[in-house]
Amino acid sequence: MNHPLRLGIAGLGTVGVGVVKIIRKHAQLLEQRTGRKIVISAVSARTRDKDRGVSLSGYDWEDDPVALAKRDDVDVFVEVMGGSDGPAKAATEAAIAAGKDVVTANKAMLALHGQTLAETAEEKGTVIRFEAAVAGGIPAVKALTEGLAGNEITRVMGVMNGTCNYILTRMEATGQGYNALFDEADKLGYLEADPNLDVGGIDAGHKLALLASIAFGTKVSFDNVVLEGIQRISLDDITRAADMGFRIKLLGVAQMTARGLEQRMTPCLVPTLSPLGQLEGGTNMVVLEGDSIEQIVLRGPGAGEGPTASAVMSDITDIARGIRVSTFGQPAKTLTNAPPSRSATPAPYYLRMELQDKPGALAKVASILGEAGVSIDRMRQYGHADTTAPVLIVTHKTTPAALEQATAGLAKTDVLVSDPVSLRIEVL
Amino acid sequence: MNHPLRLGIAGLGTVGVGVVKIIRKHAQLLEQRTGRKIVISAVSARTRDKDRGVSLSGYDWEDDPVALAKRDDVDVFVEVMGGSDGPAKAATEAAIAAGKDVVTANKAMLALHGQTLAETAEEKGTVIRFEAAVAGGIPAVKALTEGLAGNEITRVMGVMNGTCNYILTRMEATGQGYNALFDEADKLGYLEADPNLDVGGIDAGHKLALLASIAFGTKVSFDNVVLEGIQRISLDDITRAADMGFRIKLLGVAQMTARGLEQRMTPCLVPTLSPLGQLEGGTNMVVLEGDSIEQIVLRGPGAGEGPTASAVMSDITDIARGIRVSTFGQPAKTLTNAPPSRSATPAPYYLRMELQDKPGALAKVASILGEAGVSIDRMRQYGHADTTAPVLIVTHKTTPAALEQATAGLAKTDVLVSDPVSLRIEVL
Repeated sequence: MNHPLRLGIAGLGTVGVGVVKIIRKHAQLLEQRTGRKIVISAVSARTRDKDRGVSLSGYDWEDDPVALAKRDDVDVFVEVMGGSDGPAKAATEAAIAAGKDVVTANKAMLALHGQTLAETAEEKGTVIRFEAAVAGGIPAVKALTEGLAGNEITRVMGVMNGTCNYILTRMEATGQGYNALFDEADKLGYLEADPNLDVGGIDAGHKLALLASIAFGTKVSFDNVVLEGIQRISLDDITRAADMGFRIKLLGVAQMTARGLEQRMTPCLVPTLSPLGQLEGGTNMVVLEGDSIEQIVLRGPGAGEGPTASAVMSDITDIARGIRVSTFGQPAKTLTNAPPSRSATPAPYYLRMELQDKPGALAKVASILGEAGVSIDRMRQYGHADTTAPVLIVTHKTTPAALEQATAGLAKTDVLVSDPVSLRIEVL
Repeated sequence: MNHPLRLGIAGLGTVGVGVVKIIRKHAQLLEQRTGRKIVISAVSARTRDKDRGVSLSGYDWEDDPVALAKRDDVDVFVEVMGGSDGPAKAATEAAIAAGKDVVTANKAMLALHGQTLAETAEEKGTVIRFEAAVAGGIPAVKALTEGLAGNEITRVMGVMNGTCNYILTRMEATGQGYNALFDEADKLGYLEADPNLDVGGIDAGHKLALLASIAFGTKVSFDNVVLEGIQRISLDDITRAADMGFRIKLLGVAQMTARGLEQRMTPCLVPTLSPLGQLEGGTNMVVLEGDSIEQIVLRGPGAGEGPTASAVMSDITDIARGIRVSTFGQPAKTLTNAPPSRSATPAPYYLRMELQDKPGALAKVASILGEAGVSIDRMRQYGHADTTAPVLIVTHKTTPAALEQATAGLAKTDVLVSDPVSLRIEVL
């Protein structure tokens, strides 16, 4: 066990550079903790001549990540290039074929190809670890896979896209609308090349699908994640929700129900005073619930050089220590195909509508909800200057179907100025 | 790797029974996740004839835990008896001598004898794991030892005694004093046989000492934990602190400073709106800070059958999976002897005093603080019916020495009705 662990690092962006820095800075600490030297044999990136703020002297250079993955002097292939396919996937496959262990931060690749990659790796006797792919620096994969291994997991929740949470909390703090804060996030470099990965909830959906696979012993099925981004969230909804004691989060929820596996990454209301409600800016939070543990909440930085590199290092030190856990917590071949749940668990909902200011309007709204079997918990009509009245309703627990019937009915009436806005309230 | 992992469980109280229940209920799940059957060979407890709400048929019975620890059909000795010495220690030593791995929930034993036990175990090639000994169900030991292994840890903080937090938060909620809530906690069975272990901060101090050892690569040194319980916390301080935007917690803090290793388990003020400030009742929280991770916060149930058994199972499933990490994250022989810091890191302080209502009194207070080099951040004098005036002061960062000089000076004046109360404000 005492020969050095030799790394090949593919990708020298923020994360890759962060990993190099830690390995250079903490060589002795890492050896004390793992019992082995952890060394870098070679690195690879798109452009070689670029000042990355860290010396790469002493590491071989490979232009081709596939060549890097196959090198005899590489024990662990560290894939921090990103991209669900292309070079990242090709190099990961090459590494596995060559019998290397793989540490990756690539949520997209695993969400789409994780099952195949894990099966291949397990046939070859290598491991694929991906702590950095979910919730940045938070050791969420480890907590779920190892820390809660004695639990039947009942629900996994998470705010796992810092950019969305940044935009939503800044909207509330500054009173500016979505577009203005989108531009601000863009200027700050918080957005992926394809912003829809962030604001469309896709990136967070990838992460949820990975956690769900571990939690429920099911094959990763990103296609069955119900996705909705934050683009339609208005300042109105944020302030009105706050009035009612809620904050809006892009919240991921996965649970196994009698109706099948439920996976949602959608804007939800959560109580302002709950841990999830308190989350500001780019901070991430993962909530894990199990039959014995009840609930644990993990909070930490969701991105950034240091935190993400810290998560990559956690996988590397695990491998150096001889810790070898199946990618999804049990052999990939034993993961089941869970039928997706066609409808979400009943929940209370938030309804906002602009009511025409005429007699009987509110009565009509109430009766339409009643006919749909949606009962009202709280209702507020706000004072108003013009001829329309903002009305907020918090319903009792209801099925999504009943709620749809109600909103469809409301949309058809002549008493609303515009279609009602409905948002799920997640019960914590 | 595929022969069953055979357990001997010593202690059938809440935790032991919880472990038996999980192993009976989730046999298949555990085998899927670890690749091995996890079975119980034998159990041991003080009294045999007692209904524990779970069937023990099929397990051999040992009256003597030492005999249990030595059995040939036991691979892992699960020590959930408690007690720093006596049978727990004897049986643990016997298990190690017999080459068994040990899983324990015994913070007292490890805080006092962890170094010797770990060294012996590592010489024998066995492991001692103790996730359940710290912060109940929260996988805090795993997060620190493995999840943050790439970090130089800068500070560890925690609210790790649910009983104290229950008493403090109930005092605030009910307006009752310490003694009344102590009795309530006692009636609810929240107190250890020796209540001072809880309210004196000893139990939480044990936990802090264990985390500090992992965090800083130092030998466990519980003797150097500065301990103060919650007995002197008055309802007055709780309500006055709340006025100033703080809540009082029994907070553990460990950090490596130029002055040496600082370990404190004392009542501190934390901002009401911080994660630590929001903590209610028996919930625990561990805050881990490192040079790359910045800060992660772990929150969960600090006690109870399910959560504690979940933590024990985490160690058992690790061993079943072949995960073998040194007890304190690096070989016990390499842990250093850190000199204890003689004084705490400078911090702001909360001062409460009853001022005699006469001219110049406040001026005298201010000048005494000034002479001691303690500068005032915020000051409040409250309206009052009688002839004394409650005065609250929040100081700027100051050294404990300067604060002591100030409070000593204040105590000597003729303008205070009673000695001033001072509490540290921990900066998060």
